[in-house]
Amino acid sequence: KQIILLPGDGIGREIMESAKLVLTAIAMEYNHKFTFHEHAIGGDAIDKYGVPLPEDTVNACSSADAILLGAVGGPKWDSIPVHLRPEKGLLGIRKSLGLFANLRPVKGFASLLHASPLKEEIIKDSDIMIVRELTGGLYFGQPSERRENGNVVVDTLYYHRTEMERIIEKGFQSARIRNKHLTSVDKANVLESSRMWREIVNEKAKDYPDVTVEHLLVDAAAMKLITQPNQFDVIVTENLFGDILSDEASVLTGSLGMLPSASVRTDGVGLYEPVHGSAPDIAGKDTANPLGMILSAALMLRYSFGLEEEASEIESAVNECMEQGYHTADLKLNGGKQVSTKKMTEIVLGNLT
Amino acid sequence: KQIILLPGDGIGREIMESAKLVLTAIAMEYNHKFTFHEHAIGGDAIDKYGVPLPEDTVNACSSADAILLGAVGGPKWDSIPVHLRPEKGLLGIRKSLGLFANLRPVKGFASLLHASPLKEEIIKDSDIMIVRELTGGLYFGQPSERRENGNVVVDTLYYHRTEMERIIEKGFQSARIRNKHLTSVDKANVLESSRMWREIVNEKAKDYPDVTVEHLLVDAAAMKLITQPNQFDVIVTENLFGDILSDEASVLTGSLGMLPSASVRTDGVGLYEPVHGSAPDIAGKDTANPLGMILSAALMLRYSFGLEEEASEIESAVNECMEQGYHTADLKLNGGKQVSTKKMTEIVLGNLT
Ligand SMILES: CC(C)[C@H](C(=O)O)[C@@H](O)C(=O)O
Ligand SMILES: CC(C)[C@H](C(=O)O)[C@@H](O)C(=O)O
Repeated sequence: KQIILLPGDGIGREIMESAKLVLTAIAMEYNHKFTFHEHAIGGDAIDKYGVPLPEDTVNACSSADAILLGAVGGPKWDSIPVHLRPEKGLLGIRKSLGLFANLRPVKGFASLLHASPLKEEIIKDSDIMIVRELTGGLYFGQPSERRENGNVVVDTLYYHRTEMERIIEKGFQSARIRNKHLTSVDKANVLESSRMWREIVNEKAKDYPDVTVEHLLVDAAAMKLITQPNQFDVIVTENLFGDILSDEASVLTGSLGMLPSASVRTDGVGLYEPVHGSAPDIAGKDTANPLGMILSAALMLRYSFGLEEEASEIESAVNECMEQGYHTADLKLNGGKQVSTKKMTEIVLGNLT
Repeated sequence: KQIILLPGDGIGREIMESAKLVLTAIAMEYNHKFTFHEHAIGGDAIDKYGVPLPEDTVNACSSADAILLGAVGGPKWDSIPVHLRPEKGLLGIRKSLGLFANLRPVKGFASLLHASPLKEEIIKDSDIMIVRELTGGLYFGQPSERRENGNVVVDTLYYHRTEMERIIEKGFQSARIRNKHLTSVDKANVLESSRMWREIVNEKAKDYPDVTVEHLLVDAAAMKLITQPNQFDVIVTENLFGDILSDEASVLTGSLGMLPSASVRTDGVGLYEPVHGSAPDIAGKDTANPLGMILSAALMLRYSFGLEEEASEIESAVNECMEQGYHTADLKLNGGKQVSTKKMTEIVLGNLT
């Protein structure tokens, strides 16, 4: 299997190293052959090649089986014109590979829930999968421009029916293999695109009679994530709503540094990255939490390679670290032992069977 | 002063009665003359006249000094075509009166904070004012339509520079009379409209050197509202981001039923309504919480009539109810005394000096 590594910026490089070590150990244990090729993206690519997404990177990713991404961005590139910013690398790679489905599991670790901003009785037992459309909507719709001498501006929320259909199907499929409850989030009382979205959800619902469907307005969803997070199973929504709600959801469990994400398309090719950012302030200090990146590698094994046993083994090894009381500086584990990025990686490696 | 009452649907009528009683008492005490005229909106107007916003209502509101709105909507009207739904009445009145600035104060009552989904150390001392643009953006932009035989859909995020300028100024003005910290929320790494927004915020900042400005991406804002709500003072943002973030913020303090809102324009005319909805399940049962509506009336006195002393008197009277341990069924006050809508209103009246 050809894996492209895009370490990117800030702590990206350190945590990528951790994921690579874990994958190498898994390959040895199960006799798989993973090859790794590293390419530049984001600020790293701007520094080396002057653009956030070099053609060479796109080409390498196009022929890969899966991609691991660390993180992109940082204050260093904040004053660059917007079309050359690090984030454009991320948006560009998603779009050019057609990675239309962003999957973000949000599940608390029992031993970390005390760090949640929410009361324990509210957050406990929550286990949410957010399925976010990733290559359409306001992010890519045209026109997106100034008009009338710069006095008017428009952005366009554009969707083709097929773009809605495939992500909504992904939502139903995710619900089917989980707790069979799908919450579709839209703003149908205001947006025409949301009304079309809701119609398609209702059509598709007929093909998934085993899945219960609920429609929720995006404003109501933003409230319910806080007041009753454990009432959700799978949430499916368009790009921008998904961006806001998945970030909102990511802080509920108190362990943002642990959260992985997957961006996939139908044939299994996918890009995997931790939910947290590039944290330039702690880059190179060997203090970053590598577990979000390691768990992203586990998602890669599951979704892109169908290696369920291997994925579960990594997840169990990470779980065990928590139970053993190890944590990095971002997590304040009561009475636990704080370790470095490298040490945490070694502990995960030691916990692999 | 001419005040139009739009009780609307569900519990709207009961809580409007409460606000009217309180305003009448204040008028007596201070020797003001308030005249009240009631008109139909939302489902109520659909039932009576077949449309959610009758012309007669618009005309009456146009010549009023201020408007009080109860709530609109309910399952009864859910199957009506979308352009005739109760919400269209609300959107229509905002737009036709040009009420471009939605002000939503979010401040917890000390005695109610225990009902917050957040831990007390996180939510305590938060005092946020959300300033949301209310008559532009995706809500009203054209085109908003199906294309290509219904296979494509677009909505348009449209802003004129002057629409951005006036709401951003409102944000700065609000910050100036509060704690002088303005958080401008946008999605400038993706949207052209957000980039123009950010430019205007930076321009206007020069006119308000006493106000500290911070830019925050909408996804980061959705996180920070949960993790550090007490780090905000004033938030200013466009219509849809404001819709999502203000609803998210409204559940943080655990007392949604207490929150008022104001929708105003530059000349002082405004529409005032509680943040909570029409709660059809408890309508007519004399159990609804009238305090959000009563506090909205206080905002009317402050913002539309400049009656600061009168507004403060109502707010103190409501505060006193909480300290006396009175609460309606929506609030679970430890060891307090649960009372009806009418009884709560009497207690507020009794607490007026
Ligand atoms: C960096 C940014 C463009 C991106 C997005 O909005 O999609 C990020 O917030 C994310 O969610 O991956
Ligand atoms: C009813 C709906 C159209 C409205 C909005 O989205 O503006 C409501 O959510 C609000 O915030 O007042």
